[in-house]
Amino acid sequence: MRTVGLWATALPILVAAALTLLAATPEADTPSYTASADLVRPDNYREWIYLSSGMDMSYSPLAMGHHMFTNVFVPQAAYREFLKSGRWPDRTMFVVEERMASSKGSINKVGQFQTDLMGIGVEVKDEKRFSERWAYFNFDEGTKSASTNPKSACWQCHEDHAAVEHSFVQFYPTLKPVAQKFGTYKDR
Amino acid sequence: MRTVGLWATALPILVAAALTLLAATPEADTPSYTASADLVRPDNYREWIYLSSGMDMSYSPLAMGHHMFTNVFVPQAAYREFLKSGRWPDRTMFVVEERMASSKGSINKVGQFQTDLMGIGVEVKDEKRFSERWAYFNFDEGTKSASTNPKSACWQCHEDHAAVEHSFVQFYPTLKPVAQKFGTYKDR
Repeated sequence: MRTVGLWATALPILVAAALTLLAATPEADTPSYTASADLVRPDNYREWIYLSSGMDMSYSPLAMGHHMFTNVFVPQAAYREFLKSGRWPDRTMFVVEERMASSKGSINKVGQFQTDLMGIGVEVKDEKRFSERWAYFNFDEGTKSASTNPKSACWQCHEDHAAVEHSFVQFYPTLKPVAQKFGTYKDR
Repeated sequence: MRTVGLWATALPILVAAALTLLAATPEADTPSYTASADLVRPDNYREWIYLSSGMDMSYSPLAMGHHMFTNVFVPQAAYREFLKSGRWPDRTMFVVEERMASSKGSINKVGQFQTDLMGIGVEVKDEKRFSERWAYFNFDEGTKSASTNPKSACWQCHEDHAAVEHSFVQFYPTLKPVAQKFGTYKDR
């Protein structure tokens, strides 16, 4: 009876803990598709793990007409798996967020800070769904779902130039040594 | 007996869930001090919530001799409290991470990406410990603990110019509308 009493006390606490834990592992961190096979926009990416930012980065020599930041995020579970293996688990999503840059504002005198959202790009590894394993999507603010970009738009460049699988780990300073340790890093 | 049997099955699962949950709420997300009252460096800040980045930002008109990114992070629990109230809970820590910028590397042609860590600054709200409520610390790579910066170095500027309490929410685009909604935003 004493043991049962202890369980009776502990059980509601443990159930609550388990439910909280389940809630902390949201479905939104893996890709979700509409009936017409479009990717649903991941809305909680700002609560994922931050990988790095670039400013005005371009792989062609033509610069843009305005300043822009790009911030890259990946879900916690995928990040933790990468730390253990140097590889991305199936159904990993990456978000690259584009934000306008501003120089004059408040007390800032020099350099640039981030302001309005311009859009997001999403890279998805989904080996069962995509014959090329990786697919790419773009969302403007307000877009709720998007179809896959043509292969020539993003896929080919990631295939040819990304350091780890299709991810540009050469530009993510905390992940580069991890991939190098596990031998998954290609010098590109 | 049948109920006890169910509990016997469920208990180990629930205990495991509870332990995982506890592990996911690390002490490292609140300030910790040495015996000599120095702040212990928060080592897991890259797994906190990312607020924003700047590039070459300066509050004086003199630019630096090199390019530098600054990335700002805050613990999950403090972030969630801010979303609910527009205020920072006591014992919130902020980390601003300084990273070198590079333009030429891999396939990049234009703009800047982040490379080596230069150091971190930590801002702490700890109302019981600091008579001025907020305190500021700097860590080089390898520094394990640090004493408080003089008040003139950071505290006064945050006191005079930060938009929400001592935090520069004017430069964190996702938090600015939250603070404005709760009426905690000062136009500065």
